[in-house]
Amino acid sequence: MTDLLARGDGMMAQAARHHLGSGGGRVRAGLALQSAKALKLPFEVTRAISSACELLHNASLVHDDLQDGDTMRRGDIAVWKKFGANAAICLGDLMVSSAYAAIATTPVDHLSTMISHMHKRVSDVIGGQHADLESNCRTIAEYNEVARNKSGPLLGLPVELCLIAADRLAFVSAAMAASDAIAIAYQTTDDISDVKNDLEAGGLNFLAIVQGDEKSRIRAAQLHASEYARRAIEIASKLPDGTGEGLVALANKFAPHPVIEEAA
Amino acid sequence: MTDLLARGDGMMAQAARHHLGSGGGRVRAGLALQSAKALKLPFEVTRAISSACELLHNASLVHDDLQDGDTMRRGDIAVWKKFGANAAICLGDLMVSSAYAAIATTPVDHLSTMISHMHKRVSDVIGGQHADLESNCRTIAEYNEVARNKSGPLLGLPVELCLIAADRLAFVSAAMAASDAIAIAYQTTDDISDVKNDLEAGGLNFLAIVQGDEKSRIRAAQLHASEYARRAIEIASKLPDGTGEGLVALANKFAPHPVIEEAA
Repeated sequence: MTDLLARGDGMMAQAARHHLGSGGGRVRAGLALQSAKALKLPFEVTRAISSACELLHNASLVHDDLQDGDTMRRGDIAVWKKFGANAAICLGDLMVSSAYAAIATTPVDHLSTMISHMHKRVSDVIGGQHADLESNCRTIAEYNEVARNKSGPLLGLPVELCLIAADRLAFVSAAMAASDAIAIAYQTTDDISDVKNDLEAGGLNFLAIVQGDEKSRIRAAQLHASEYARRAIEIASKLPDGTGEGLVALANKFAPHPVIEEAA
Repeated sequence: MTDLLARGDGMMAQAARHHLGSGGGRVRAGLALQSAKALKLPFEVTRAISSACELLHNASLVHDDLQDGDTMRRGDIAVWKKFGANAAICLGDLMVSSAYAAIATTPVDHLSTMISHMHKRVSDVIGGQHADLESNCRTIAEYNEVARNKSGPLLGLPVELCLIAADRLAFVSAAMAASDAIAIAYQTTDDISDVKNDLEAGGLNFLAIVQGDEKSRIRAAQLHASEYARRAIEIASKLPDGTGEGLVALANKFAPHPVIEEAA
């Protein structure tokens, strides 16, 4: 990833190293590795997909932090706070461009389809980020739509690109449905811990759109997360050759509350 | 271009239509059309290259206006001023991504090389924009370096991509050299008319780094522009099959002052 970004000692290279050096879970690279292994993709293709997805994710973090005014990222100072807003805009742009360069490092069949699909998911996530910033959700359906677009596309993308590279195009829409459901489960779970900050900042939070006292609203959020995690598991576990195992493992993190029994 | 960006009536679609609807010279599309015709490229490839270059150029304008605090663009209100900084960041990101989607609409041989080259030139232009914002140029060499990177990459890119698509890779570096020289000629010429605004805003301007009274500094800028325009013409006119005719025509706009006689 660093090779595709800036080299040398300029501020852009420093900002890139500062941001990428702060780590992160590399969840999307992990999903790509798992799916690529299941589909027996060559190393170069796996590396290209992993890098592209991580670069897009990190681009979104650099620009989101600036847009949201978040000063910290992974326990370190956010790029815009340390290097200025202009550097953050430039670095995010560079990362988006690098993601496409990463995919193109390996000429594979379906490269054209992979790039079109990448753009579709980038469009979704930009739409989601913008909707989140401007949002005034009043219903759970509206909330789901924003949550799905905000986090789903870049969680599904590694798996979706592996499926395209492996010529299993018929399963791409299922991977998209699974990652969209995980995004709703993730966002709702995240909202439980972030409720105080979100409400103070006037941001979108699941607990702000359901009724009842605090305990029952938290319970509603937990059930909502569990329901969507369960849906994700159901869909992802049907992907061919165990391609969705990474998504299943991720979804399991947001399904601690057995829904079926309790909701019955 | 609009198809690849946002549809519907959301703010992102409105912002895209507002920006693209304000027109512009479509200089880069024109360069692509001329080179593609010279190289006998199919219509779909020509359209893909034209759209990609215009989308990258417009992405740079949307983000540059925000970064520079410029409130007007082509006689209309700049995107960030009309729709907010967050919408401008999102729209610019979407345009960068769309540019790669545009190139990928036509599966051609060398697609991988075209994308890698696009990223190289995007990196150059981002580096140039960042250097311009942060710049403290004291010499003409430093000035040339910033000017070259700021405008050269996206002027050369349409011609360079046509050469790659036509399997004439050996000439790509000459097209780059020609467009870099045009960028210096263009930027220096632009500085003559912008000197007042630039100096007030503390921005980079050729006239601020040469000595003498106003008249002699303007004359120095005109000679500098003419010299680089002449170099561009010399290089571009040697491109095969008249591929560089568009670049030659563009360079001619910045060479009104016969250099050789006067400098002798």
